[in-house]
Amino acid sequence: MSTTTDTARIFSSDNTAGASPEIIDAVTRAAAGQTLPYGADGITADVRRRMSEIFERDVDVLLVSTGSAANALSLAALTPPWGSVLCHRDSHINNDECGAPEFYTAGAKLVPLGGDDAKIDPDELRAAMRHKAGDVHSVEPSVVSLTQATETGAVYTRDEIHTLGPIAKEAGLRLHMDGARFAGAVAALGRTPAELTWRAGVDLLSFGATKNGTMTADAIVVFDRSLTAELAFRAKRAGQLASKMRFHAAQLDAYLTDDLWLRNAGHANAMAARLQEGLKAIPEVGLLGAADANILFCRLPQRVIEGLLADGYVFYHDRWEPGVVRFVTSFATTEEDVDHLAQAVGRHAT
Amino acid sequence: MSTTTDTARIFSSDNTAGASPEIIDAVTRAAAGQTLPYGADGITADVRRRMSEIFERDVDVLLVSTGSAANALSLAALTPPWGSVLCHRDSHINNDECGAPEFYTAGAKLVPLGGDDAKIDPDELRAAMRHKAGDVHSVEPSVVSLTQATETGAVYTRDEIHTLGPIAKEAGLRLHMDGARFAGAVAALGRTPAELTWRAGVDLLSFGATKNGTMTADAIVVFDRSLTAELAFRAKRAGQLASKMRFHAAQLDAYLTDDLWLRNAGHANAMAARLQEGLKAIPEVGLLGAADANILFCRLPQRVIEGLLADGYVFYHDRWEPGVVRFVTSFATTEEDVDHLAQAVGRHAT
Amino acid sequence: MSTTTDTARIFSSDNTAGASPEIIDAVTRAAAGQTLPYGADGITADVRRRMSEIFERDVDVLLVSTGSAANALSLAALTPPWGSVLCHRDSHINNDECGAPEFYTAGAKLVPLGGDDAKIDPDELRAAMRHKAGDVHSVEPSVVSLTQATETGAVYTRDEIHTLGPIAKEAGLRLHMDGARFAGAVAALGRTPAELTWRAGVDLLSFGATKNGTMTADAIVVFDRSLTAELAFRAKRAGQLASKMRFHAAQLDAYLTDDLWLRNAGHANAMAARLQEGLKAIPEVGLLGAADANILFCRLPQRVIEGLLADGYVFYHDRWEPGVVRFVTSFATTEEDVDHLAQAVGRHAT
Amino acid sequence: MSTTTDTARIFSSDNTAGASPEIIDAVTRAAAGQTLPYGADGITADVRRRMSEIFERDVDVLLVSTGSAANALSLAALTPPWGSVLCHRDSHINNDECGAPEFYTAGAKLVPLGGDDAKIDPDELRAAMRHKAGDVHSVEPSVVSLTQATETGAVYTRDEIHTLGPIAKEAGLRLHMDGARFAGAVAALGRTPAELTWRAGVDLLSFGATKNGTMTADAIVVFDRSLTAELAFRAKRAGQLASKMRFHAAQLDAYLTDDLWLRNAGHANAMAARLQEGLKAIPEVGLLGAADANILFCRLPQRVIEGLLADGYVFYHDRWEPGVVRFVTSFATTEEDVDHLAQAVGRHAT
Repeated sequence: MSTTTDTARIFSSDNTAGASPEIIDAVTRAAAGQTLPYGADGITADVRRRMSEIFERDVDVLLVSTGSAANALSLAALTPPWGSVLCHRDSHINNDECGAPEFYTAGAKLVPLGGDDAKIDPDELRAAMRHKAGDVHSVEPSVVSLTQATETGAVYTRDEIHTLGPIAKEAGLRLHMDGARFAGAVAALGRTPAELTWRAGVDLLSFGATKNGTMTADAIVVFDRSLTAELAFRAKRAGQLASKMRFHAAQLDAYLTDDLWLRNAGHANAMAARLQEGLKAIPEVGLLGAADANILFCRLPQRVIEGLLADGYVFYHDRWEPGVVRFVTSFATTEEDVDHLAQAVGRHAT
Repeated sequence: MSTTTDTARIFSSDNTAGASPEIIDAVTRAAAGQTLPYGADGITADVRRRMSEIFERDVDVLLVSTGSAANALSLAALTPPWGSVLCHRDSHINNDECGAPEFYTAGAKLVPLGGDDAKIDPDELRAAMRHKAGDVHSVEPSVVSLTQATETGAVYTRDEIHTLGPIAKEAGLRLHMDGARFAGAVAALGRTPAELTWRAGVDLLSFGATKNGTMTADAIVVFDRSLTAELAFRAKRAGQLASKMRFHAAQLDAYLTDDLWLRNAGHANAMAARLQEGLKAIPEVGLLGAADANILFCRLPQRVIEGLLADGYVFYHDRWEPGVVRFVTSFATTEEDVDHLAQAVGRHAT
Repeated sequence: MSTTTDTARIFSSDNTAGASPEIIDAVTRAAAGQTLPYGADGITADVRRRMSEIFERDVDVLLVSTGSAANALSLAALTPPWGSVLCHRDSHINNDECGAPEFYTAGAKLVPLGGDDAKIDPDELRAAMRHKAGDVHSVEPSVVSLTQATETGAVYTRDEIHTLGPIAKEAGLRLHMDGARFAGAVAALGRTPAELTWRAGVDLLSFGATKNGTMTADAIVVFDRSLTAELAFRAKRAGQLASKMRFHAAQLDAYLTDDLWLRNAGHANAMAARLQEGLKAIPEVGLLGAADANILFCRLPQRVIEGLLADGYVFYHDRWEPGVVRFVTSFATTEEDVDHLAQAVGRHAT
Repeated sequence: MSTTTDTARIFSSDNTAGASPEIIDAVTRAAAGQTLPYGADGITADVRRRMSEIFERDVDVLLVSTGSAANALSLAALTPPWGSVLCHRDSHINNDECGAPEFYTAGAKLVPLGGDDAKIDPDELRAAMRHKAGDVHSVEPSVVSLTQATETGAVYTRDEIHTLGPIAKEAGLRLHMDGARFAGAVAALGRTPAELTWRAGVDLLSFGATKNGTMTADAIVVFDRSLTAELAFRAKRAGQLASKMRFHAAQLDAYLTDDLWLRNAGHANAMAARLQEGLKAIPEVGLLGAADANILFCRLPQRVIEGLLADGYVFYHDRWEPGVVRFVTSFATTEEDVDHLAQAVGRHAT
């Protein structure tokens, strides 16, 4: 990115945004004084208390530095090395983590499944769960991982989760949710966090925060608390037990205070919806798939793509198939940013 | 720690301190605007430039969230799974990382060596390097890891490093330095970072920062740049590639600016020296070992230990042998904190 | 299998056969006297010499106890943990080894490709090799694994291997061949072992023997001898360095003597061809795919399947799709066994 | 070893012997006919029945190709990756398996303990078990591994095992026995296999056979049968599930028939005792340690060592300290071999 890039023109991901002012303030406050390390501080206790309120039950919380760590640690606690993780073929854990799940699990196998909008198809799940189960010649189906929201910006509905969860749990498999964009899903659905997770059987949730306002802190929310001790050992061993844990905790604490997490996500979703609205009016634009949260896929004429790039816009294109582009909004995207983008598309399209 | 603890009485570790104001300011500044993720931002580039200046050669830098991650990633890049890591028996990697090196290396073995003040004895090193080398029945000696400063607060002199380094390198082994307290060692020795590292053969340096002023950011300094690509894959796979890398980078950038790292470490060392001076005057106190940096071991009568605990002092005691205590100072320790502690010891001793 | 099963009616796999008399004789001879352990014996040296003759160049040989170990060790030496193994989706390493490759490689990923007759399609290979190469967010394409003969009994022709091999090697990937049924492929093609392997770029060959006459011994043939030392450490560490190696070696030595390996494989192939001939005459039988070696797939009416099962025949059926059955012949299958089976099919079909 | 070596002069290990005739006969008989693979054959069932009789309770049995595999698989089933294995510092698992336990356990740590005759000292065990237990900064004490007979040829008495076992079990640790020379220990003690194993809390036993008469087959005897399913997956994944399992089984079956295992071991022990008797009469020989089984350590003058080597004797010397040599006898050692060796020592000593 050249130094002259107008950073308001970056729509490549929600990880290009900075951090919410509330987060920075909390970190600044946390910097003063001494406190016990490794999570024995008061702010870390506060985070656990807040999470328990939000999820309407006692939960344990592990604070980690990346979403990849949250996912990989969770999967390691849910599958033996000879197990398999059933996930969507387009999922982040399958494509974008350089084998972090395989590393942390000591070699478990990810079994990719199909389904529209990057959501797992229930029939494919049922078939995969039965495939060679109990046969030592094959990895053992052990855990199902749902991505909420999905990689394509769709959101599993409450009913879809309550269909898939029981399929897994009744067959004895464990259930993980990769919630890198969980806030966006909750904001989109208007359902309680509880009913979108543990009430459908979710054992461990990767509770994403970095894409939605924190700096370098994500969390694992532990519904099955029998896993907490194991996760603590695994986290230390993975280099994920921060000595000055208060700084992770301060980020999460502010993130959960006064619904900042839902306000940020709601804003990001609204910006994507506004962009969708703006693009809908342009006949040359083909909108693709469900855009329930803050990710929008569409098909653009090549001259539009080239025009936008020439304008300094940053976004993924031609990665899925020719002419398909992805725009991502964030808590930091402004209405003006969105309107300028829609106008630019319109200008190049005609 | 009860809420009524006077936090100025915590001497258990340097990880109980918060963060330097300069670090917080840098993070605050970094929070605004959009930028490319995963280290493609300008601040990360600045850190690499600063490190190259400090070490007087082109280096690569990986920013990670903990010192354990820095050590484990480094060791994984330096030893095959069937290799061994020769380290002091009191080293952090051997005792305090819950097997992180074993995890990251896919099962390499740590071979503990002896030596005074937690420094590796050269003769023991030579013997261990030759032990069953080339014999497939035994793990293969592959890397030597030096801890600078050591776990007991001693510092390898320039000459000691230039003795041990060549022993390793001439035998074809790689050289790692666990510099969780590297700043303290440099401050204590008044030598250049270059001569204390790569000029003695160090391939990879875990460049600690969290104990000395940053919040949640440490670094690997890569002298053997042929390892950089491998380290990048390993870091991603370990969940250590932060998407909003600018926030790690901002911490390190401020840490390296205007010698903050050396000023902070120099202060911590001075506070330990001041404490040592204060305790020296008390006949009931037995000072133990070299206290070159910010860690001080001494032997105290049981009534003194009990008195300090009753005062609300927090420190490790009776962990090594009865009556042995450890005091650690940090960049945030004040002269007043130290003087109060020394006075309290004196008071309980008489 | 009930005790009254006529074992001549087992057509489920070639691993249901026993061992060739020549193999047993060699093992019996090897049992006498003392000799040095771990492969320092004379018979192990003989095997290496014979393999070098057969492959027309100096090769190294590792003797292991299973084909899974041969494959997993080979792949571990050819890919880093963050690498990927490009293989056919129907390959044994992908489906039937319970994650042995993932275990031995410390978590590398198998990327399944398509292609007829379980042979990798060159275009799919090219696309997969390029997919996110060099991108730390994704596993790095590192090795291509060909199964010769394939899981469906087809054989890569000399030209197909010389197409696929260079595709891999020119892109810097390594080349592994799973030759669990390599003898059958060589026997079917009438080509030299050299031109079917290293002349097309194969670095390591899993040289299967157990399915074709030995008891419990397979081999890795090492064409890239720079990998030999690493393989030796890996084998020891994997529990694959037999102390009384002479007993593995005696099996392989007899197997390679007087072309026993090719005679056995040629016989197994001939029995499959004879069965194919016999079934071809039965209109109700639908022959499926290429049956180049000793595996025959066909479609049978349900009443035929049931009739054969009632007769005591043992074979896989309804595992791929309804009505599809697999018959496998071996060095121990007799013409009479085959003719009886064909007659039974004919009897039940009409 | 030159081709002119008189193999009767090899005393370096019990793995230089061949195989018992009864074992070879059994393998020969097993070679005929077809049978189901992967342990579904009748001989494998027979082995399990025999083992259950010998150990006076229902046990499960896994047949593997090496003792290293037996040990590493057992330890992997008994410790989590963040656990530690408490073992004697001279144990085979700690020194001679190239990190196989670390590989199979995904990075657990071996904690070496002291004690005379390579037997674990109970007080050291108690201290190690308590060391940082429950502390996530350190590996968690998880399993104790006893080597019976020990690396120095001593044998834990019945009482010693019943002291150490309960120490481990009462603290919640698991108990493994490396019985590479278990037969020798049983033969030496005249106690039942049951009281030397599970009656003292042993969960898994590596039941060595290769050093005592089989070719390439050892076993894991599973007392805690809740581990059987996990072991089966782990074995497959490790390349240790032989397709033609009948050949491993035939070896073990013959080994257990008519007390061959105890007769062979008793003979080997008697040969070591005879050698000890012969050497005792030579004043220049210093016998060292307990020689309860088939391993004898002694101190010899340098001229004796040189004389024996010149005679073509093969044995380990100068590996522990100057002048210390080790002689190992086996089921195949004859009285004549032993007497010749003792005479040679006497000849060179005077």
